Amino acid sequence: MTDFDTTRAMFHIPEGVIYLDGNSLGPLPHGAEARVARAMRDEWGEMLITAWNKAGWMQQPRRVGDRIARLIGAEPGSVVMGDTLSIKIFQALAAALDMAPERRVILSDTGNFPSDLYMAEGLAGLLGDGYALRTVAPEALEDAIDESVAVTLITEVDYATGRRHDMKRLTEAAHAAGAVTVWDLAHSAGALPVDLAGCNVDFAAGCTYKFLNSGPGGPAFIYVAPRHAERARPALAGWLGHAAPFDFERRYRPGAGVERMRVGTPPVLQLAALEAALDVWEGVSLADLRARSLELSERFIVGVEAACPELALASPREGAQRGSQVSFRHPEGYAIMQALIARGVIGDFRAPDILRFGITPLYIGAAEIDAAVRILAEIMQGRLWDRPDYRTRAAVT
Amino acid sequence: MTDFDTTRAMFHIPEGVIYLDGNSLGPLPHGAEARVARAMRDEWGEMLITAWNKAGWMQQPRRVGDRIARLIGAEPGSVVMGDTLSIKIFQALAAALDMAPERRVILSDTGNFPSDLYMAEGLAGLLGDGYALRTVAPEALEDAIDESVAVTLITEVDYATGRRHDMKRLTEAAHAAGAVTVWDLAHSAGALPVDLAGCNVDFAAGCTYKFLNSGPGGPAFIYVAPRHAERARPALAGWLGHAAPFDFERRYRPGAGVERMRVGTPPVLQLAALEAALDVWEGVSLADLRARSLELSERFIVGVEAACPELALASPREGAQRGSQVSFRHPEGYAIMQALIARGVIGDFRAPDILRFGITPLYIGAAEIDAAVRILAEIMQGRLWDRPDYRTRAAVT
Repeated sequence: MTDFDTTRAMFHIPEGVIYLDGNSLGPLPHGAEARVARAMRDEWGEMLITAWNKAGWMQQPRRVGDRIARLIGAEPGSVVMGDTLSIKIFQALAAALDMAPERRVILSDTGNFPSDLYMAEGLAGLLGDGYALRTVAPEALEDAIDESVAVTLITEVDYATGRRHDMKRLTEAAHAAGAVTVWDLAHSAGALPVDLAGCNVDFAAGCTYKFLNSGPGGPAFIYVAPRHAERARPALAGWLGHAAPFDFERRYRPGAGVERMRVGTPPVLQLAALEAALDVWEGVSLADLRARSLELSERFIVGVEAACPELALASPREGAQRGSQVSFRHPEGYAIMQALIARGVIGDFRAPDILRFGITPLYIGAAEIDAAVRILAEIMQGRLWDRPDYRTRAAVT
Repeated sequence: MTDFDTTRAMFHIPEGVIYLDGNSLGPLPHGAEARVARAMRDEWGEMLITAWNKAGWMQQPRRVGDRIARLIGAEPGSVVMGDTLSIKIFQALAAALDMAPERRVILSDTGNFPSDLYMAEGLAGLLGDGYALRTVAPEALEDAIDESVAVTLITEVDYATGRRHDMKRLTEAAHAAGAVTVWDLAHSAGALPVDLAGCNVDFAAGCTYKFLNSGPGGPAFIYVAPRHAERARPALAGWLGHAAPFDFERRYRPGAGVERMRVGTPPVLQLAALEAALDVWEGVSLADLRARSLELSERFIVGVEAACPELALASPREGAQRGSQVSFRHPEGYAIMQALIARGVIGDFRAPDILRFGITPLYIGAAEIDAAVRILAEIMQGRLWDRPDYRTRAAVT
């Protein structure tokens, strides 16, 4: 059994805060401060350039990738770290399209995170030649997979509502139609068990600053199924993805396997923070995490629905169809969230009307859920959100 | 007058080390440790998600970009931080090609850093339709700029030899032929005065972990000339480059000016290190830096040539034609560099036969140059490099 008291003690949660936004930015693991300080002082400071070898910086993106692989059901050696999720989506899409050269459609859904759609649109624009992004409603996705589709680009868990797509089923449907799959795991990695290998996924990418707690701007990861790794063609052909970066050849030759998806110099300090954040997961069973997440989510939904009838559940009611967040809708969602934050309950708002709450058992338990419900109920029952300052939108929501 | 004793005191240089590799990875500025610790503890740790507004994380890429702009002769508001140099080169190239739609050639030279060539090759492959990378010898570049050339992709200072291209002249030649210019400032920014605006450059990009001392994997920057900024089309269309990222629209609309060149979530911890590293530059005149760099380089060249006749100068003899590094050739260059490093003189080796030495006045003075010459002379005169262990290549050279 996973001991969630132990994992909770590994995080810094500010006094008086109930943090229900770990689906946006995970909190600081205590170990990260020391690990980054060591990377700065003992590695960068003392070893200087020799740290690329001596401190293993050059292998870090693969070494850390293997630790992520364990959390997403990926084969060892199939994941590498670097860049941002948008860049990794672009890489995966380009490589996937290259594997279906006679087709022109990238299929996604309107619930996908906008950056995925933008990156797909940008790539289609570069490719010209009839390439296009087609989007359909999330529930129409499976039926829309036909033989015109080159690649399906699907985010497993909807960033706004927490609705979860069926990875196994959609991957099978895509393969049956001859399409290649790219899965975005932004709200999956560290949120619930993922089984990339078991689902026969082709490409996947995700970020680490949400449920994996790597800190602001932590690096992304990319997965390439081992069966594709030696023929996937990198469109972003950077020198650290070259077969022999330090031979400085003039022509690009892709590196072995997933190494070819590396681009430029890895962000060593952010990777150091991530390494410390991954230590938290050493004793964690994803099955236990999932069970606890569903239990806490149910508790939250039942509590809010009982106390706040004006809030409409935006997430699926059935746990199996959700990721690890619960969302409600209200026309004054932004102001309500400001009122919550002012009282120490931190969730976030997503336009136009969504209140999002991340349910993260590593550091959230039943007591926090109950307190959050109580505070939300007070705000709703007393209309405490109805203040001009709570309605003034900040740059970042 | 710039006080180089003051700047030197702002860096951590390990006891007994003469660091002549700041052109590869700059040393740790003392201020960076405290600044990163503060970003972790006080911002990430205490403010959590609210730090995107409260600590100004969202504006950081532009705020830091303006500090870089001052060092490269760029207009305020024309530089933004993010990603790696390879990604920024790709973005600049794609936007530049889009401005010359009837042409198909990216012109570069064989002395360019391989990653630039790889990224250009990758982009041409995506575009298809006759797009191609053409490379010529560095000295043939000017004559090769003809009316088939859409974009010139030139690194001002050669990573291996330190040879410097004439930015003003080549930019004029490109414009006269109707081509758009992309300049790589990897070995220019913080190494010598750069005048992007004065040279009428169109696009530029550079990294910050070399002469700007931001630490391993520090973020890159991209420059877009203000006259192009509102029409440059981003090919890597990420959500933070969108006109309204937090409106979560489904279609991409480019942000205002250079903001559109942002892609994903910025690396806040690496940016914090960079902010501290830029404090060092507050009292520095680039003219003073350049004068000191040329003086120290000349001292090094004269000393090495007198004491080590087997080493052939690989850099231009004339200072004006060099960046801020000095390179020598020797068939046993790798082993010689290992012998130097073993004695505390850290430079680096670049295949096939180049010994590279960065000359960085912020923390290197005449005493270090003289000591480095003396130690190199001992190694060469005593053939102290002639050991099997010095000849065994590490993964990273």
